[in-house]
Amino acid sequence: MNRITGKVIIAGAGPGDPGLLTVKALRAVEDADVILYDALVNTTILTYAKPSCRLIYVGKRKGCHAYPQHVINELLVHHARSSRVVLRLKGGDPYVFGRGHEEYTHVAKHDIEVEIIPGISSAIAGPACCGIPVTHRGTSESLWVITGTLSDGNFSSDIKLAARSSATIVVLMGVSHLAEIAHVICELRSTAEPMAIIQNGTTNQQQAVKGPAYKIVELAEQYEIGAPAIIVIGKVVDIADAFHFLNLQEANLRLAV
Amino acid sequence: MNRITGKVIIAGAGPGDPGLLTVKALRAVEDADVILYDALVNTTILTYAKPSCRLIYVGKRKGCHAYPQHVINELLVHHARSSRVVLRLKGGDPYVFGRGHEEYTHVAKHDIEVEIIPGISSAIAGPACCGIPVTHRGTSESLWVITGTLSDGNFSSDIKLAARSSATIVVLMGVSHLAEIAHVICELRSTAEPMAIIQNGTTNQQQAVKGPAYKIVELAEQYEIGAPAIIVIGKVVDIADAFHFLNLQEANLRLAV
Repeated sequence: MNRITGKVIIAGAGPGDPGLLTVKALRAVEDADVILYDALVNTTILTYAKPSCRLIYVGKRKGCHAYPQHVINELLVHHARSSRVVLRLKGGDPYVFGRGHEEYTHVAKHDIEVEIIPGISSAIAGPACCGIPVTHRGTSESLWVITGTLSDGNFSSDIKLAARSSATIVVLMGVSHLAEIAHVICELRSTAEPMAIIQNGTTNQQQAVKGPAYKIVELAEQYEIGAPAIIVIGKVVDIADAFHFLNLQEANLRLAV
Repeated sequence: MNRITGKVIIAGAGPGDPGLLTVKALRAVEDADVILYDALVNTTILTYAKPSCRLIYVGKRKGCHAYPQHVINELLVHHARSSRVVLRLKGGDPYVFGRGHEEYTHVAKHDIEVEIIPGISSAIAGPACCGIPVTHRGTSESLWVITGTLSDGNFSSDIKLAARSSATIVVLMGVSHLAEIAHVICELRSTAEPMAIIQNGTTNQQQAVKGPAYKIVELAEQYEIGAPAIIVIGKVVDIADAFHFLNLQEANLRLAV
């Protein structure tokens, strides 16, 4: 079998807090000869790499991809042919809207060994860092994780089915569609349905607001909460302690209905 | 402020593979004076505890809880009053069907400092370790994580809404309801809808089968796949390489439709 000696590891870097990296991913960072990393990877993690490790940023710059996906795929193969360990480090989990499987498939078809290391998804840790349990007995017994923007650029129709369910909904990459999402929730759940927007969750830049569906667009604008952020929808949002949120007391006063 | 010196940390131990513990949770294990752990926590993780650390098993024995939830809550408070660091180590993530928030609330109301450390959920890492990406562009752009058994013992009605969506569905604690789940999927998606059952995912006891919805109950019985296991439903199941699954070639031959 014509195996190339280099190996590719596709690992999740977790939601932002470097302490939420897995032990396995940390070992991979320490061992890597080349690391290709995304915009959402906390660069503190890269300080654990060997001095000789080559660090290649392949994320977005000013909204534009530094490299399109097919070039990233090619870079993985290219470096695996001249390095022992190539680490592809992705924000969150590589299989939760991470295009990890596209990279896996491309590398594997070149007969290069490839390993997947799951990471903590911001879909779960993002709410947790604001005190929101995505499930809680008697409040919510399911969790729907959805992307705000489909690969064809459209808005997912699944959001309407999700709104009809009792699930906690977490929308990733959905801030640019916030008004549409809040409208669907007002229509299919209630104008009072609790929503939260969490920007840079689990990091020291974390900012979050919460409020009823009918007011959430205004709150996000007022407190300038924008991408990268997740949207959390459901009764579990109201479980969270207020201190995690920006000026919540003021917001609560203004929002009293 | 009448703060007690002890601190409680509620941490996810991840899906089984000790390497999937977070760096933060590993530090907590090393630092803890008392660890209360569940049945789904890989005991290899406990070998990183200090020799003086007191290890208390609070999981299920032969289907019965060693301690009911209110006793676990009390134990956390009790030990925090005489120890510096009390670690509550839970399988997967404490906020994904983990009752983590019930423990958090109980400890916090006793004015004891409490910290949550998210863990990798088997809902994402379980499929990944069998080569199943829970999302994949063009195949599935949302993920619904649901419990097979509600806290009132009933079967969740959300499964029917989930079946009508295009989401990848991951059912935790659902093996005892497998026949009902497969029936709903046959009725609302298709008899050919790909399903997988993954037992002890990410560990060296991992076993898994996959097949169409109409045959999955028979396959699970034939290969004796039972709890603790997760059920994965959706087109992404067919993306997985066959080698992760038990006797798949044979199963495929027999299942040819």
